[in-house]
Amino acid sequence: MSHALVAAGKSIKSVAAGKSEKEGNRGRKVSGGMGEKQGGNFFIPGFMFSGISAGIKEGEERDLALFYSVTPATAAGVFTTNRVKAAPVLVDRMRMRKGRCQAIIANSGNANACTGERGMRDARAMADATAEALGIPGELVLVSSTGVIGKPLPIDKIVSRVPSLIGNLSSHALSDAVEAIMTTDTFPKVKMEKCSMGDREIRICGVAKGAGMIMPRMATMLCFVMTDAAIERACLQKALSDAIEVTFNRITVDGDTSTNDTVLVLANGMAKNRVISLNSADYSPFRDLLISVLLELAKMVVKDGEGATKFIEVRVEGARSEADARKVASSVANSNLVKTAFFGEDANWGRIAAAIGRSGVPINPNTFDILLNHVPVTVGGMGTNEALQGEADQVIKGNTITVTIRLHQGNAHTSMYTCDLSIDYVKVNAHYRS
Amino acid sequence: MSHALVAAGKSIKSVAAGKSEKEGNRGRKVSGGMGEKQGGNFFIPGFMFSGISAGIKEGEERDLALFYSVTPATAAGVFTTNRVKAAPVLVDRMRMRKGRCQAIIANSGNANACTGERGMRDARAMADATAEALGIPGELVLVSSTGVIGKPLPIDKIVSRVPSLIGNLSSHALSDAVEAIMTTDTFPKVKMEKCSMGDREIRICGVAKGAGMIMPRMATMLCFVMTDAAIERACLQKALSDAIEVTFNRITVDGDTSTNDTVLVLANGMAKNRVISLNSADYSPFRDLLISVLLELAKMVVKDGEGATKFIEVRVEGARSEADARKVASSVANSNLVKTAFFGEDANWGRIAAAIGRSGVPINPNTFDILLNHVPVTVGGMGTNEALQGEADQVIKGNTITVTIRLHQGNAHTSMYTCDLSIDYVKVNAHYRS
Repeated sequence: MSHALVAAGKSIKSVAAGKSEKEGNRGRKVSGGMGEKQGGNFFIPGFMFSGISAGIKEGEERDLALFYSVTPATAAGVFTTNRVKAAPVLVDRMRMRKGRCQAIIANSGNANACTGERGMRDARAMADATAEALGIPGELVLVSSTGVIGKPLPIDKIVSRVPSLIGNLSSHALSDAVEAIMTTDTFPKVKMEKCSMGDREIRICGVAKGAGMIMPRMATMLCFVMTDAAIERACLQKALSDAIEVTFNRITVDGDTSTNDTVLVLANGMAKNRVISLNSADYSPFRDLLISVLLELAKMVVKDGEGATKFIEVRVEGARSEADARKVASSVANSNLVKTAFFGEDANWGRIAAAIGRSGVPINPNTFDILLNHVPVTVGGMGTNEALQGEADQVIKGNTITVTIRLHQGNAHTSMYTCDLSIDYVKVNAHYRS
Repeated sequence: MSHALVAAGKSIKSVAAGKSEKEGNRGRKVSGGMGEKQGGNFFIPGFMFSGISAGIKEGEERDLALFYSVTPATAAGVFTTNRVKAAPVLVDRMRMRKGRCQAIIANSGNANACTGERGMRDARAMADATAEALGIPGELVLVSSTGVIGKPLPIDKIVSRVPSLIGNLSSHALSDAVEAIMTTDTFPKVKMEKCSMGDREIRICGVAKGAGMIMPRMATMLCFVMTDAAIERACLQKALSDAIEVTFNRITVDGDTSTNDTVLVLANGMAKNRVISLNSADYSPFRDLLISVLLELAKMVVKDGEGATKFIEVRVEGARSEADARKVASSVANSNLVKTAFFGEDANWGRIAAAIGRSGVPINPNTFDILLNHVPVTVGGMGTNEALQGEADQVIKGNTITVTIRLHQGNAHTSMYTCDLSIDYVKVNAHYRS
């Protein structure tokens, strides 16, 4: 595991769980910040957590996690679009059909992908052992795995540790559980928000892991969201799908999509709010709160991008359609040449121009502008003067940079979030299995 | 500029011009190998070359080249599909309309892209100064540039050096001209083939530069092909377009497409063969000879991929259609995670499986096989036994590796050629302009 390089003596990794946070709620109507902490942990009524070592990874690192609701929760999920789906993804998709879930068992160190029938048996065995020990139906337990692809899961080790996993359940142990799903992550990713809903207050807390194989549809490898809100199942699924579209589907680290990507939301209704439905006035605030949590987690994933030293927002404005804006943003955000230039702190906007031009969108090469933060480096498809280029050279030394691309073809706009491509990205990934 | 890393003490860069060559003509009906050399240079009847320093690059490196035919030649060209096209590309596309060309002037060190009207004037001035000094019509001179995007061309320096450039013309100076179009290339790329055509012999000699921004449509940044064959213009254009499809459009280094990609072919008819037309029996042999030259140049570009330590052929078999095969091959060949694993000599086939799964092709996750050279690492979507994985660990230490993917869905197949993603790729590109 490699730690992110630090530019200008200051880590960009300040948005870790429990640390102070500079990027706020971007004007959303939410009252919470990093969320209420109790005993150093995040508290969501009715949820308990556990994270232990089961010997899946080498050494004593935590690698087995449990997320548990004291009552069966309404559940929604979104899974990888990769045709090669890991066994736990296939198992969860079947178990999700009834839209109820009470526990999620997850391991790191092994993805249980490309493992055939044995993988399917192992995934079910992992969930069923948990259900049995908890005394709940097997269909209420979901399962997730992350790590190396193509190796059989050490299922006996895992099953033998389930009692201990359950024995450690605590409403204050979220940090243990999050730690147990980390792979190349260099910091845990947790975000909690709350808001009023009628005379009640609801909370949404999300955790995520992921630092590589990050590319829309989907982005993060694993993300579990827990809320005490009462909400109808179809409504929860729609809120999740809509939220994914503007959060995890807007980030990219390396253009690779994992076999295991999973986002699950459990809503246990302990807040006793009026049940949220698609037609109720509470739907929009709930969806916006969910977006707020997922956007922050998505940004944390990018900031923790393998070897990343810079967080880059690629904002495209003045496109004919949002689809056009996304194509252009994606082309720029996924360009290795653009990303290595950022790593080298070289304001080489010609590479951005080339990426815009190859996006497949019929842009006008004589009208587009490029800005690095507030500094125009390209106007009308041409470079600006040396004074402005000099300013851009300073901008690119920062840890957080916004690339704004103005196409002057319409009114549609979008943003994508990415990071630079560093020597450490190659190092991390050249020897991941070794 | 960085030199390629050398694995196992042996450079993969053995296919440089003038060096002995291990990869032959792959059974094509051609008699030539690296082509006949005269005085350490490649000789094509009626063509002359020059390469000098004009001070565009720093230092004394050659950066200005001239390719000249003693008689006006039939010309064909293929240009970048990038919407942001460099000025010389725009100029050439107009001048190519008549299908005749007698000289190509080309510079490295500056791409003359994103330079607006001034760029257009500079590109025309560069060509017209050459035409004037050669005493030929301006419309017979084409122009190419490669290097940094977005800086004005030092046109006065270039124009002032045109007489000297012409003064150095020689039929034995191809290596000077090739050197003058190199940027991050670590070796010159030249390939010559010849074959009988009736009672005559024709030659095709191609030169290329390019090591980054390599991605289909198009691949290389600049490629000039000279032949003494007599051939109709439409026929030459079709042969070129068909040849590009199976050569430069099958390679990728970093997924980026340049603003300057240009392939030009000049056929001056000095071989006095019966003029080749689309209906003549000589068309296929000519096209195949052209493919042979361009395929070798395309492979050289990949072998010289920025920071590359390994040459990788991704071969997809058993696809439903060639389009499907290409999607799968492209997904694997462009995966940063796959490419870094090769750099790390880690036979991490799970990443190949994930790239296959995210290609957009509806593959069957339970039937695909993956082989590294002859060693099956994945059969029916699952890993093979430890003995075979151990063999794969040895295969991946080699400099040239074929990844064969069998989809078992049909009979279509294709190959793409790529290289690994190394620490040096990042280094080369982080500080390209500095």
